[in-house]
Amino acid sequence: MKAAIVGIGLIGGSFALALRKYGICDEVIGVDNSEHNRNEALTRGLVDRIATLDEAIAAADLVVLATPVDSIPLLALKVLNKVTDQVVMDMGSTKQELCEVISQHPRRGRFVATHPMWGTEFSGPEAAVSEAFTGRTVVICDREMSNPDALRLVEAIYEKIGMPIKYMSSEEQDLHAAYVSHISHITSFALALTVLEKEREEDHIFDLAAAGFESTVRLAKSSPRTWAPIFMQNKYNVLDVLREHIHQLQIFRRMLEKDDVKGLIATMEKANTIKRILK
Amino acid sequence: MKAAIVGIGLIGGSFALALRKYGICDEVIGVDNSEHNRNEALTRGLVDRIATLDEAIAAADLVVLATPVDSIPLLALKVLNKVTDQVVMDMGSTKQELCEVISQHPRRGRFVATHPMWGTEFSGPEAAVSEAFTGRTVVICDREMSNPDALRLVEAIYEKIGMPIKYMSSEEQDLHAAYVSHISHITSFALALTVLEKEREEDHIFDLAAAGFESTVRLAKSSPRTWAPIFMQNKYNVLDVLREHIHQLQIFRRMLEKDDVKGLIATMEKANTIKRILK
Repeated sequence: MKAAIVGIGLIGGSFALALRKYGICDEVIGVDNSEHNRNEALTRGLVDRIATLDEAIAAADLVVLATPVDSIPLLALKVLNKVTDQVVMDMGSTKQELCEVISQHPRRGRFVATHPMWGTEFSGPEAAVSEAFTGRTVVICDREMSNPDALRLVEAIYEKIGMPIKYMSSEEQDLHAAYVSHISHITSFALALTVLEKEREEDHIFDLAAAGFESTVRLAKSSPRTWAPIFMQNKYNVLDVLREHIHQLQIFRRMLEKDDVKGLIATMEKANTIKRILK
Repeated sequence: MKAAIVGIGLIGGSFALALRKYGICDEVIGVDNSEHNRNEALTRGLVDRIATLDEAIAAADLVVLATPVDSIPLLALKVLNKVTDQVVMDMGSTKQELCEVISQHPRRGRFVATHPMWGTEFSGPEAAVSEAFTGRTVVICDREMSNPDALRLVEAIYEKIGMPIKYMSSEEQDLHAAYVSHISHITSFALALTVLEKEREEDHIFDLAAAGFESTVRLAKSSPRTWAPIFMQNKYNVLDVLREHIHQLQIFRRMLEKDDVKGLIATMEKANTIKRILK
């Protein structure tokens, strides 16, 4: 099988490596607007060759869209306009707008909407790793909209890579992603800014690797060009979660102001029950 | 050298293991109010024997206080009342109240106030690990208040374990700890509650290990009995940081509400500069 990866960054590059490593594809073709990314992807062996989008679509059995989420809906339409029996899939973090935009396309059935639940704070082809996805869950959205053969091909790929599959609607996926991924990034960005704000006044903010800070703020290194479109595309879900999160912090603050130790302990004990759903 | 560890939980237990592993002590005596902790500490070989506080003080060259921070000031006074030429040190996360309470004690010089910058979301002797502290920074507070020989002994121990030492006043340490440790815990607790709140309504909150959530919320598993006293003892610094953090989240929310993509990107780019101080 031949695959075309459109957008050879952290996600597309890692997927390209997995397609080769697990013997799924004998040729991987890279497509990217950035000359830097194209050169890096070739030099690092993420792809076998570089092509234009049109050349790649014509040569590939599978077209994988791994660009920032704000570009995916129109890109998906353009690709669907050109495919015949190829399968097209995306790997973006948001799905509602994409699935709505392509819903009436006569070849909608060739498209499979997926969200592999993996990422790091790094970006670009330099950050791609072949074992990125193995063991992680992938969400497939609106599967009834995909042709059975297209769905089956994408399922088989994710199964070979070792990813458990969850099925849900694009609405459910975007809500879920807001809770398990998007809010964590906002919290980290805000935490980094909090510390940077204070650091201007104080000389004693150092050794941030210590005592829990590093893991909580790690995501603040993430790419704004990746995340701004995600937050915008999932705006209403993200705002819901963000309001609830600010509310929880305000409750905590009020208990601390009032020396309500019992309340603090009860609140933290409740938070401890996250163990139940966090493996 | 013989050491008495008062409070054989995550921190005291890990320190006991390090004292043996690095050949610093030939006997480690455990003191703990909890029968469970005493039994676990013996069974797991964290300590050589169990004793009462008075027996342990009489037998030891070094007395290490590793109980919850709200109990340390009075415990430190009681121990100082009984020591002659022994050295006493604590390992708590807050220092101002402790250092103020013991400041006028005639044997204040025997005391060395320290905060090794390490912890996990787990607690109790079961969670103790011998390599906990190696490579981590330790803060020593108000060193001019300690006798030179007492300070030198504690410095030598931390150096043998492989911990870089930073010196600061107890005021500076508490401010620093609020930023690099305490706020991360509050954020994690609040994030866990946000998700648990939503989970009551939705069936689709799952696979929380994915996509960044796990690392941001890990600390929400931490012990309320450890952390409520830390937040209370460092109340004013923690409230300062918490207010700034809520403020940053509110700015983020407003930009998202107004579709201010440029603002969002500029804010995240600023947050990215945390790379500068985060190793």
